[in-house]
Amino acid sequence: MSRKVAILGASGYTGAELIRLIATHPTMDIVALSADRKAGMEVGAVFPHLALEALPRLQRIEEMSFDKVELVFCALPHATSQAVIAGLPGHLRVVDLSADFRLRDPAAYETWYGQPHAAPHLQAEAVYGLTEFYRNDIETARLVAGTGCNAAAGIYGIRPLLEDRVIDPDRIVIDLKAGVSGAGRTLRENLLHAELSEGTHPYAVGGTHRHLGEFDQEFTRVAGRPVQVQFTPHLAPMNRGILATIYVDGDPQAVHTSLSRRYDLEFFVHVLPFGAVPSTRHVRGSNFVHIGVVGDRMPGRSVVVVALDNLTKGSSGQAVQNANLMLGAEETAGLTLPPVFP
Amino acid sequence: MSRKVAILGASGYTGAELIRLIATHPTMDIVALSADRKAGMEVGAVFPHLALEALPRLQRIEEMSFDKVELVFCALPHATSQAVIAGLPGHLRVVDLSADFRLRDPAAYETWYGQPHAAPHLQAEAVYGLTEFYRNDIETARLVAGTGCNAAAGIYGIRPLLEDRVIDPDRIVIDLKAGVSGAGRTLRENLLHAELSEGTHPYAVGGTHRHLGEFDQEFTRVAGRPVQVQFTPHLAPMNRGILATIYVDGDPQAVHTSLSRRYDLEFFVHVLPFGAVPSTRHVRGSNFVHIGVVGDRMPGRSVVVVALDNLTKGSSGQAVQNANLMLGAEETAGLTLPPVFP
Amino acid sequence: MSRKVAILGASGYTGAELIRLIATHPTMDIVALSADRKAGMEVGAVFPHLALEALPRLQRIEEMSFDKVELVFCALPHATSQAVIAGLPGHLRVVDLSADFRLRDPAAYETWYGQPHAAPHLQAEAVYGLTEFYRNDIETARLVAGTGCNAAAGIYGIRPLLEDRVIDPDRIVIDLKAGVSGAGRTLRENLLHAELSEGTHPYAVGGTHRHLGEFDQEFTRVAGRPVQVQFTPHLAPMNRGILATIYVDGDPQAVHTSLSRRYDLEFFVHVLPFGAVPSTRHVRGSNFVHIGVVGDRMPGRSVVVVALDNLTKGSSGQAVQNANLMLGAEETAGLTLPPVFP
Amino acid sequence: MSRKVAILGASGYTGAELIRLIATHPTMDIVALSADRKAGMEVGAVFPHLALEALPRLQRIEEMSFDKVELVFCALPHATSQAVIAGLPGHLRVVDLSADFRLRDPAAYETWYGQPHAAPHLQAEAVYGLTEFYRNDIETARLVAGTGCNAAAGIYGIRPLLEDRVIDPDRIVIDLKAGVSGAGRTLRENLLHAELSEGTHPYAVGGTHRHLGEFDQEFTRVAGRPVQVQFTPHLAPMNRGILATIYVDGDPQAVHTSLSRRYDLEFFVHVLPFGAVPSTRHVRGSNFVHIGVVGDRMPGRSVVVVALDNLTKGSSGQAVQNANLMLGAEETAGLTLPPVFP
Repeated sequence: MSRKVAILGASGYTGAELIRLIATHPTMDIVALSADRKAGMEVGAVFPHLALEALPRLQRIEEMSFDKVELVFCALPHATSQAVIAGLPGHLRVVDLSADFRLRDPAAYETWYGQPHAAPHLQAEAVYGLTEFYRNDIETARLVAGTGCNAAAGIYGIRPLLEDRVIDPDRIVIDLKAGVSGAGRTLRENLLHAELSEGTHPYAVGGTHRHLGEFDQEFTRVAGRPVQVQFTPHLAPMNRGILATIYVDGDPQAVHTSLSRRYDLEFFVHVLPFGAVPSTRHVRGSNFVHIGVVGDRMPGRSVVVVALDNLTKGSSGQAVQNANLMLGAEETAGLTLPPVFP
Repeated sequence: MSRKVAILGASGYTGAELIRLIATHPTMDIVALSADRKAGMEVGAVFPHLALEALPRLQRIEEMSFDKVELVFCALPHATSQAVIAGLPGHLRVVDLSADFRLRDPAAYETWYGQPHAAPHLQAEAVYGLTEFYRNDIETARLVAGTGCNAAAGIYGIRPLLEDRVIDPDRIVIDLKAGVSGAGRTLRENLLHAELSEGTHPYAVGGTHRHLGEFDQEFTRVAGRPVQVQFTPHLAPMNRGILATIYVDGDPQAVHTSLSRRYDLEFFVHVLPFGAVPSTRHVRGSNFVHIGVVGDRMPGRSVVVVALDNLTKGSSGQAVQNANLMLGAEETAGLTLPPVFP
Repeated sequence: MSRKVAILGASGYTGAELIRLIATHPTMDIVALSADRKAGMEVGAVFPHLALEALPRLQRIEEMSFDKVELVFCALPHATSQAVIAGLPGHLRVVDLSADFRLRDPAAYETWYGQPHAAPHLQAEAVYGLTEFYRNDIETARLVAGTGCNAAAGIYGIRPLLEDRVIDPDRIVIDLKAGVSGAGRTLRENLLHAELSEGTHPYAVGGTHRHLGEFDQEFTRVAGRPVQVQFTPHLAPMNRGILATIYVDGDPQAVHTSLSRRYDLEFFVHVLPFGAVPSTRHVRGSNFVHIGVVGDRMPGRSVVVVALDNLTKGSSGQAVQNANLMLGAEETAGLTLPPVFP
Repeated sequence: MSRKVAILGASGYTGAELIRLIATHPTMDIVALSADRKAGMEVGAVFPHLALEALPRLQRIEEMSFDKVELVFCALPHATSQAVIAGLPGHLRVVDLSADFRLRDPAAYETWYGQPHAAPHLQAEAVYGLTEFYRNDIETARLVAGTGCNAAAGIYGIRPLLEDRVIDPDRIVIDLKAGVSGAGRTLRENLLHAELSEGTHPYAVGGTHRHLGEFDQEFTRVAGRPVQVQFTPHLAPMNRGILATIYVDGDPQAVHTSLSRRYDLEFFVHVLPFGAVPSTRHVRGSNFVHIGVVGDRMPGRSVVVVALDNLTKGSSGQAVQNANLMLGAEETAGLTLPPVFP
């Protein structure tokens, strides 16, 4: 039986990725699409690669009818998202891909995003959308908050280690290399091909990246004490992919065992044999996560490397996975596409 | 009901692409895989992006059992392919992805490939695998010859125009830009990242590229007279994609009408509105072909632009499409994946 | 003795390339730099790669003193350029890198640029800046008009052939692949890395690209009769470089001989041995032009391939070469830097 | 006055980069070039971008005359290098770009390179070629050992901090992103464009990379006690550039002050204002090093980011800088070329 969904904010990359994934989903149908500035246009006029799909025209949100819709994917910019979601009909279940409902604590939201939250009642209700850790809550949630793509990569590599107490919570460094699609379809000089290709640089160095709010929240919760990590994202000259190289103080074998056990039954998270390391290119376009663990020559230190596709497992694939749970479908439905390589 | 297939030569890019496509095919199962030099290995050891699939181990061809296999995809190098296929059990239907059975005339084969054909009896039997033009023959064929990826791009743009007599057969120029995966996983200096990225260059200039044999064969057949084209392939710094810019003498509207009519009912071939031009990035990873037609400022001259993914529609996707026909499945089964962008 | 120059419009790519080249020029000194929206900033704040040079601060044009300046490079957008140059002190010699003074005929300017020329008296005076063809005029010119980068590539390959009457002027096709820096540091969606990398597409197809005005002007002049060419530029996923693949009707040896003789004494233009083809990567960052000639299998047809760096020989390097002539310096001064590869 | 030099191993990337740099060097002339497997060929046949230089033909080393040569650049593979250098005439001064003479301790060499050193007497004599730290020794040295390109990046960022005792020597993490040209012109599957572009991955994780031998040697010497660092190199999809992101325990202002003071008078090493971070693209093709320092939100922790071009400052540019000192030329001669961007 087909389940009807709508996508708000379909003219960005996460919106396009949702459409791509749902296009071959066995039980999910897109019945409405919004894109305010492109209302009235066909999807194919905005994204020529999606020109061939039988898709509804883009609309303004206020023109949309949600009568037959069960679930809404909200791929709007943060701040916009909270206002729009607050105004949606109450019967709708919502998977939000923005940053608006990731932080449970309104004060933390205000700290990281620079303004008070406009819908704090919803924030309390929202479930953090990292499926492998909040599966039960997601199944029954009305509102699921998609995680930051960088946050997802870091949490997959670190959270089980904190749960199992195999690493020192005060010595965690996440050095992350991210593809440019994570910045969205935004017109910024540093995202131009001529500026970005053939080079690598860090940004938001020193603890200013907003995804740190998610790390703080999730790691502190599971460690039962305040945990802060060092985190440096880098923009690498590639379109898709996040590679997180994580330095921890902890026995390498214990680290590998902890991660292997934690993800043993997880379809999408694959822990490589001890000593093997992943590459972003081997998860590209897919919902899979690859994790490698290597022991350092300095005893008691380990390197954990996590690779995922920021647009898929880091964002739109994660959203579909959560929607599957919320709608009672197979969790993996529509998400078994292998990576695209080369 | 599941149909059992085998892939010979699974350690190259076209082999990997077959595995990727068949992984989500509703009615096709891979039951055997060969790769001589990597026999005994898991697919995931050769292609880490395919590590998660439930796939048989790589074998040597002579170790394989074809008892339960209905159809074999042969993704071996040319010359090797003809010998192997000649030795396969007679009950097998074969889709060959090499160049070995594309040219019907053994003399033409010898001219373009520099050696006599080793299985001329099979060559006579083989059907040229450009599905949209040989659909009926393919359905009943025992052996289908996958086309050259460049040849496919050129033929999609030109063949209907010759059939409809709307262009001058003596004034056809195909200027083609190809992604590097078309050269395979070969260790050649000019395929290194440091050599190839950030640059563009032509190769096989002046009429020496082997795919000209296919152009000559197909165009001469349909025109009813000898037709030669000018053809210059270029290596562009991208992994996937072929863009053929075709210059013809013919009325632009007549050219657009001819192509639009020819492909009107074709699921995979999409003729854009008059004046619009395609890009390889909008067909990437998919089985779709995009065709654009623009009139030149010089009256009576037209530019036809064809974009497809060399590994999918130009090779492995085409092969699956043909196998679908041969096995009586939906022609589009497993091939409706939208392009991956960005 | 040092010659003092100024650069107007130093915050774009051609401005930055001028600074790069003049930085190691033996006899040229930059004494003033303009960039209206970035006035007051150091060059290094706009282009960090130029942070280490001893360069004047960016100014508004109206703040600049031209007293000690002998020559001005004008790297402003077209339309702006003609107004600014008309207002410069009369003692200044000017190399304009915009499109404003390339077309001698004001009517042609209006046709291609959609508005009347604001300084037609200057247009009459301007010399077309393709050094190898207008050297004598450039030496004494007050105003030199830098050529279009695509136009330069096409003219280098074709003009000698028309002069020598070895090709049919009615059968010229220029299929051109251009790096993205030619579009400048402009915020446009199609120039984003995520949109542009891993793909190739044509633009301005069918005879609408403005550089056709230059082709028409130069080819008609030298042929002594109207000449039109077909011209399709493509955006290739690279930052620098233009590769023009030119199809002509003419005897290949005659074509090669014509080009070889024409450029025999030219330092920057290198005609490869018959049959060899160039690549953009082998001229990257340099003022060199590589030209190859190949005979097609169809008798009487030839392929000419021209490679140059759009920012250097196609623009800023050409400008410095012309300025050298105007100032009585060695023509090659500051321009002998070898290409940067890989 | 011109100083005559020879290059051994001119067919690799560091050899080509030496030729590029020396081509515009005011006082250095290349009088002999070796490349065993390409002996007899012109340089332009091996590197078309160097086709236009007036360069001697490639020879076998045993055919070369060193009579008029003052200094030899040895760009041969390690292990080969030590044997060749041991056999050179005694009057020659040598800059070796291989790994053969970087480690003073023969035992350390054997540990990291897996075989005993063949010329331990030369190893004792060799000076480590990081110019800014060994300038006086280099001036008088007969044999200078070019540093590892990764080692250079790490040492520039860390060594002054150990000297000034402003960081904890037991908590140093170097996460490094390197362009592919560092791997040389080697035919390896993982260096193919189709394998490497659009992805990032670590290699030699956990303390196995040979440049650790250089870190150990240099840091232990300056700290006066054993120092080990954690070091993870990553292959990023770019041709040139190294970005080292270095995590240290130390006060950020003290770190910035230490580095700023140390490099205040250095022409090629530029410490950015506190809080600013460099990018590899802003040093591309140049001999410059950019260093940034940022304080982490966790008090007492700092991030140091170092960017340089692996082929220039990390290898061939460094070699020319050292040769300048050895020959009594200006240290910066031939090396003031600004970076090439975009």
